[in-house]
Amino acid sequence: MCMNSPTLELLRSHRSIRRYKPEPVPDSAIRAAVEAGQMASTSSSVQPTSVIVVKDHRKRERLAELCGPQRYVAEAGAFLVFLADTRRHRLACERDGLTYDTRLEAFMVSIIDTALMAEKTVIAFEAMGYGICYIGGLRTRTSEVDELLDLPEGVYPLFGLCVGVPDEQPSKRPRLPVEAVLFEDRYPDDDKLLNIMSEYDEQYCQYLKQRGAKTIEGWSERMAKKFAKPERTDLAAYYRGKGARLD
Amino acid sequence: MCMNSPTLELLRSHRSIRRYKPEPVPDSAIRAAVEAGQMASTSSSVQPTSVIVVKDHRKRERLAELCGPQRYVAEAGAFLVFLADTRRHRLACERDGLTYDTRLEAFMVSIIDTALMAEKTVIAFEAMGYGICYIGGLRTRTSEVDELLDLPEGVYPLFGLCVGVPDEQPSKRPRLPVEAVLFEDRYPDDDKLLNIMSEYDEQYCQYLKQRGAKTIEGWSERMAKKFAKPERTDLAAYYRGKGARLD
Repeated sequence: MCMNSPTLELLRSHRSIRRYKPEPVPDSAIRAAVEAGQMASTSSSVQPTSVIVVKDHRKRERLAELCGPQRYVAEAGAFLVFLADTRRHRLACERDGLTYDTRLEAFMVSIIDTALMAEKTVIAFEAMGYGICYIGGLRTRTSEVDELLDLPEGVYPLFGLCVGVPDEQPSKRPRLPVEAVLFEDRYPDDDKLLNIMSEYDEQYCQYLKQRGAKTIEGWSERMAKKFAKPERTDLAAYYRGKGARLD
Repeated sequence: MCMNSPTLELLRSHRSIRRYKPEPVPDSAIRAAVEAGQMASTSSSVQPTSVIVVKDHRKRERLAELCGPQRYVAEAGAFLVFLADTRRHRLACERDGLTYDTRLEAFMVSIIDTALMAEKTVIAFEAMGYGICYIGGLRTRTSEVDELLDLPEGVYPLFGLCVGVPDEQPSKRPRLPVEAVLFEDRYPDDDKLLNIMSEYDEQYCQYLKQRGAKTIEGWSERMAKKFAKPERTDLAAYYRGKGARLD
């Protein structure tokens, strides 16, 4: 089996792109990428994903505010919203006189399969020469995003995606060494993880220095601060309000 | 931008593979695929994923039971377990005297980013000529999987992955027409969805007939039955027991 191919090279070369040339992404490219994405694996064929391409200028401007503000949400060639979508399943139940009745498992499948589909769509865009940036900020002011896109019960906004012709060449952000994430037969001891993390912290500081970052700190220090305060604390209430069962 | 390339062709050609030739997948290939996967986007660099390659013969046999039973879990060239992993973040908090304190958002990011990373890993395997099959059955008997792999607090088993040299060429399972999943500016009306679903149902029945399936029924009928009964009802309790906050 060959471990070098243009596809593997493409997979390795990913960078998130936040500056785009002012060129639109044609509908044909969006359609081709989403159709490729649809070929991702999906549990028992449930296909729990919808994508809204936001073209309306005022909606794009509003989303740029709601997601950050992040200007590239308005400025990228295209902006897509990925929805974990149980609507089609609910409609099928209703039509057949059955009650849609699920628990956390169904919510998780809708998230997992949507993410698998999104990543495949992303790689299709990159194979066509576009750059992308996922927008997790879509989960910050969910109720307002919801209203803007007329989302009915059972449709959960997950993340946005900027797509466009790259106008920057960012350097590679170093990842955890593979030894920190790939194990054999059992999960490792804390000490092993802490040792690898401290090596990685040094590499991460180097990267921040090179990028001219204001605050130079290791990855693990950054993670400790981040996860010591809860984020998006109203998210569970929002998804439950849309019909998701988290129990 | 070019909408035809070997990479796009590869993305479109995905089929889940459940029969494998009796050839192992070398460590070098697993490592290369996971390293490519690590280049997937990850929210604020959190990298919330670990992968356990299960090589121990008895563990493989046991997992084949726990996940189904599904024989290919034991028989595939390799079997990987994907973990949504907050352990490194928790260790960093502990080391810095902070309390790991999150809500549903952190759990969701760990799932989303793990799925993005997994799909990129999968495409890397496929680019090398391997076939794969995701194993959602890993979430059926989670406590036993947990014990088998020594998973500590903060590590959530998500799905398994069979990898190997394909020994079958399954036909393409038809996906929802792109019009049923790709929308512009707003979410569509129920009637539009129901109309497209009924067209797709016919196509799905044709596919089942061709495959010689015992029960011929439309996709939406199948979905209605599936989602009218809750599955894996103890999953939320299990994840909460591992330290996940779902509120």
